[in-house]
Amino acid sequence: MKRRFPRYLLVPLIIALISIPAGFFYVNWNKSGDGAGLYSRDWQPEAIFAYWNPKDFYRSVDTVVGEFTGKQCVECHQAVTPGVVNDWSKSRHATPANGQPAVFCSDCHGSNHQDLHLPTPDVCGNCHDKQHREFVAEKRYGFPSHSLAMERALDAKHFADKPKAEVTACLQCHSVASKCDSCHTRHLFSAAEARRPEACITCHSGPPHPDDETYFNSKHGQLYLAEGQNWDWSKALVKGNYPAPTCAYCHMDAGKHQVAGKSIWKFGIKQVNPLTSGNEVRRKQWINLCADCHEKDWSAARLKEMDAERKAAWNKLYKAEGILKSLRSDNLLFPSANQRPPYAMDSKDSVFQYEHIGFFEGQASAFYNVSAIERDYFEMWYFNNLTAYKGSAHGDISFVNKGHEAMDRSLETIEKKADRLRYIGDIEKNPEKRKDKKSNDENLWLKGEYTQFNRENN
Amino acid sequence: MKRRFPRYLLVPLIIALISIPAGFFYVNWNKSGDGAGLYSRDWQPEAIFAYWNPKDFYRSVDTVVGEFTGKQCVECHQAVTPGVVNDWSKSRHATPANGQPAVFCSDCHGSNHQDLHLPTPDVCGNCHDKQHREFVAEKRYGFPSHSLAMERALDAKHFADKPKAEVTACLQCHSVASKCDSCHTRHLFSAAEARRPEACITCHSGPPHPDDETYFNSKHGQLYLAEGQNWDWSKALVKGNYPAPTCAYCHMDAGKHQVAGKSIWKFGIKQVNPLTSGNEVRRKQWINLCADCHEKDWSAARLKEMDAERKAAWNKLYKAEGILKSLRSDNLLFPSANQRPPYAMDSKDSVFQYEHIGFFEGQASAFYNVSAIERDYFEMWYFNNLTAYKGSAHGDISFVNKGHEAMDRSLETIEKKADRLRYIGDIEKNPEKRKDKKSNDENLWLKGEYTQFNRENN
Amino acid sequence: MKRRFPRYLLVPLIIALISIPAGFFYVNWNKSGDGAGLYSRDWQPEAIFAYWNPKDFYRSVDTVVGEFTGKQCVECHQAVTPGVVNDWSKSRHATPANGQPAVFCSDCHGSNHQDLHLPTPDVCGNCHDKQHREFVAEKRYGFPSHSLAMERALDAKHFADKPKAEVTACLQCHSVASKCDSCHTRHLFSAAEARRPEACITCHSGPPHPDDETYFNSKHGQLYLAEGQNWDWSKALVKGNYPAPTCAYCHMDAGKHQVAGKSIWKFGIKQVNPLTSGNEVRRKQWINLCADCHEKDWSAARLKEMDAERKAAWNKLYKAEGILKSLRSDNLLFPSANQRPPYAMDSKDSVFQYEHIGFFEGQASAFYNVSAIERDYFEMWYFNNLTAYKGSAHGDISFVNKGHEAMDRSLETIEKKADRLRYIGDIEKNPEKRKDKKSNDENLWLKGEYTQFNRENN
Repeated sequence: MKRRFPRYLLVPLIIALISIPAGFFYVNWNKSGDGAGLYSRDWQPEAIFAYWNPKDFYRSVDTVVGEFTGKQCVECHQAVTPGVVNDWSKSRHATPANGQPAVFCSDCHGSNHQDLHLPTPDVCGNCHDKQHREFVAEKRYGFPSHSLAMERALDAKHFADKPKAEVTACLQCHSVASKCDSCHTRHLFSAAEARRPEACITCHSGPPHPDDETYFNSKHGQLYLAEGQNWDWSKALVKGNYPAPTCAYCHMDAGKHQVAGKSIWKFGIKQVNPLTSGNEVRRKQWINLCADCHEKDWSAARLKEMDAERKAAWNKLYKAEGILKSLRSDNLLFPSANQRPPYAMDSKDSVFQYEHIGFFEGQASAFYNVSAIERDYFEMWYFNNLTAYKGSAHGDISFVNKGHEAMDRSLETIEKKADRLRYIGDIEKNPEKRKDKKSNDENLWLKGEYTQFNRENN
Repeated sequence: MKRRFPRYLLVPLIIALISIPAGFFYVNWNKSGDGAGLYSRDWQPEAIFAYWNPKDFYRSVDTVVGEFTGKQCVECHQAVTPGVVNDWSKSRHATPANGQPAVFCSDCHGSNHQDLHLPTPDVCGNCHDKQHREFVAEKRYGFPSHSLAMERALDAKHFADKPKAEVTACLQCHSVASKCDSCHTRHLFSAAEARRPEACITCHSGPPHPDDETYFNSKHGQLYLAEGQNWDWSKALVKGNYPAPTCAYCHMDAGKHQVAGKSIWKFGIKQVNPLTSGNEVRRKQWINLCADCHEKDWSAARLKEMDAERKAAWNKLYKAEGILKSLRSDNLLFPSANQRPPYAMDSKDSVFQYEHIGFFEGQASAFYNVSAIERDYFEMWYFNNLTAYKGSAHGDISFVNKGHEAMDRSLETIEKKADRLRYIGDIEKNPEKRKDKKSNDENLWLKGEYTQFNRENN
Repeated sequence: MKRRFPRYLLVPLIIALISIPAGFFYVNWNKSGDGAGLYSRDWQPEAIFAYWNPKDFYRSVDTVVGEFTGKQCVECHQAVTPGVVNDWSKSRHATPANGQPAVFCSDCHGSNHQDLHLPTPDVCGNCHDKQHREFVAEKRYGFPSHSLAMERALDAKHFADKPKAEVTACLQCHSVASKCDSCHTRHLFSAAEARRPEACITCHSGPPHPDDETYFNSKHGQLYLAEGQNWDWSKALVKGNYPAPTCAYCHMDAGKHQVAGKSIWKFGIKQVNPLTSGNEVRRKQWINLCADCHEKDWSAARLKEMDAERKAAWNKLYKAEGILKSLRSDNLLFPSANQRPPYAMDSKDSVFQYEHIGFFEGQASAFYNVSAIERDYFEMWYFNNLTAYKGSAHGDISFVNKGHEAMDRSLETIEKKADRLRYIGDIEKNPEKRKDKKSNDENLWLKGEYTQFNRENN
């Protein structure tokens, strides 16, 4: 007997057949707005985005008409933008080794002046295939990584939620995924340049990632500052070639265009177990690297110190997190989630409003519309903690001390404010005083014009 | 009939004839004290002022007697201060081009060793006329400007009001108006030196003007740091001569000794309309300048981003200012203006005491004798706001983020404190509690020893 | 008649004869623990301590067996750690002047590969006797000084009290007493290197000692940054050899390996009388030094400004100290000393608990287990005060302003919190309200897990 298609599967099948393409359609529709990414319908690109995210937004200038050869570009731009031509003239593109043909402007930008483009990594990858493949391969390690920097920024809910002026500031660095001149500045595109720490620290500086400050304060950095001008930067980043390491020496072994694979502590933003088997492999990589110059025992002891520092830091952070969670369970956070505008763009929050406390609950987006005590924790976690971490990782102990002192101070403030919130909570149970308290609910803070303004104007 | 001088005009005329010269006399009398400027009678110069304001205060050392020729100066000082002579020997003063005579010590300092002077810009202007005229011409753009820096400092009320040790610190930088070696250090007086950013950042650093930090964090600054040692600094600051710009390249077009004329946002301390016709002219100047290396569209987009950042910043600042003004109208600032010593030197304030809130009401002088919430606003405006502004202007986005995060934090603190002041205000209406409150009025803060001390000792 | 030994002296004599050796025995016993110093029984060394304090803790790697000549070391390590060999090859150790024999690896580290040592200053002193004697002689000036840095760290009570991860961070810099490569980095050991500021600022940076920041912001530092690459660093640090001074030029006259003897203000951590006869001698030394380049009057005026700045700073600090002491006498510090765990390791404190306020009462150890208002004072004294001091000492006036602004802000916060503590104190006298207050006593802060944790785990 021929088996019939079971009738009870029919309805689910039809639903699936409809909802799967509908889902695809919905995501595509979301992505088809004026912006880019999952929330492309909720924001408009700024003019400057053309330069941070050229693939999506760059439109060629149309004031000059015509098709030009590379040599013609050079001739004209020698007068218009001589600095650009000077740089190119000194580059390997202008005078390649081994009798290869020169790489002209038009090879990367196109030759139709009304349809020029800013080269994306793909364009560079046409010739620099190995580097490009290494760079793209980084995606498999997730974020943080260079090659996912733009995508993850655009797909983040707070991209549409934050004031545009601040989001734009973020994009400048996240553009590292969209173009190679973040590290190899145009139009010299020099490998020697990118070996130096300055190539990295335009982005890697400031409170949440003081790589800049901590490297330069370290003995490594001090040696670079005092003597680096006399080192031979044309040499590869391998054992014996440099008196002291730079960012790329340690993080991009022998020039490998991929930094995410060696990361143990993942930017220090969450606690990890540094002793998983995967991390043990990475630890060995690090110890071998340090052993280019140091005793292996030294290197191992250093890593162990970093573990100890991280453990001490997370003891403090979890203590603070515990206080906030306990306030939340007792309904004592003030203003509470439902006294504030919901986290913008977060459909879940608009239904079930909820304080995000700590990394795993999404603290990372807690820049805005948070209560004072939540901001204290945010800063403790994102600024003080990372000050200590980067100090420990790069051997700048003044930052270890500074970060821990600041964490102690934050913890104290949080404890103090928690006491006060509990005290106010007690008062609220007294209905007579509750009335006074009510007036507070109408304060500026709760109106949330901030979020409202951004939603309407982004 | 001959017209008689109308009798009713006689009294006003006599008053005018007396009061106008009396006014002049009064101002002159004020300026004739031991100090300098409008409040010269309210402070005594410190020894170091001789070096920051030589025109008014330098007195020659009188231990060496005699008249000396330039060559004699050099011979003797070769032994006494060889570093000074070494510098001079390398300068164009020692070996001028075109067979001109050398410029010796005595040409600038005089030859009578008991009547030496420290050269003011006028002295340098004797030869460097173009530069001097440009420098002086800056005065027409008002303050902030280099050439008014000393005058405006000395004529400010808070010059006599602030502790001398801190005012002296201010004068060191404001001496840029009084002598040329702030930028061209003695005795090399090199143009090449002043082209480099270091010439500017001895003064242009720190919280209210982090030009230093933001330039060096920018890609421009990173290129300078990595490669600037190899650039040819003898070249003029014009298109094509430098791979990346320095302070002077952008702010002193082609070496023009005047920086105030191009300023749109005026140091970021007040909101301006960036689109006035005057500012449109300046925007074009900037865009043309950026186009030495960048696309014009890029430059325009960048300026637009700065406008957006400024607008976002002022939204936050005005929100804070509004809260303070509202507290003031409800008489809730604590301690209030009349519970504190009046702003010193401010005769108006001693009669009608009044909180100064925001730039246009004189917030700039609010370093001292302010209540906690006013200090929060002062720091938000003067430090956090300018952190963000300079980051935006110089392309260091970590400072944009840092400044805005700090402004959000400040705004939150101000809102919190405002709530508390309103709460205390409510308690005060209850006379029973008012009594408790009274005791607070006798606290340390209100006694104002700070101001009293300075008035008696300045 | 023969005098008998007076019987009444017998008991005290016996007690003395027993207790003196017992005291020695007790101290020795204390020092004989696993750690080092007076509290050696209260902590265990971390692996990294082997490198910061090699005399006490370094144990040779035992993976390679054998005795090796210096040449053999070089041959093998050319492959294993080529960077180390490269450095050595460029050093005077490899090619000494005057036909002296080369100094090989084995001369400093030993030749038995299972019993290698890290060279302590004594080892270097075998050849560099003058420098070593100067370095050791510093001990007579007490602490702060380089040569006592390790000893005083290990003998400090809070060494055993603080979390190990943070103490380890301290030791990295304090290791300056234990090994010469803090300043002359291995294996070049170059005098030229140590003449440059980078040699010092790996340690001399950060909030309590921003020597780094303030030197580089000063005109001296700016000249070094712009032009130092072209100076001849092989020259001695004496008059006429350098266009601008570095740390060592001013603090180590003509290369003398001793910095403590010239110190007037002793790191700025306590108020001193700058005009004692001893300090007058030091002032003359400074003025003479400045006169290598500047007028003597200028130098004297500068020092006077520093006195004025220090006086202004201590006026503020004593005002804050006074508030805290007054709270303490009125028993209003909260949490009070006896509501908190005693200062760990402090036997006195465990009997008679007592708030430490100000430098002379031991504020220096007040990093931990302090109340909020004490931390405010600690930061005001240790961070803000020293920001201003170093700015004044090194001619970076932006730090003078920043430090004083921060002290004003701290003083204000302390006054505010003091008001609040007095207010709470009043409430406590009302027994009805006291009950509410009680609940606060059980808060997290008072449990002191922090100290408990460290005591059990250090």
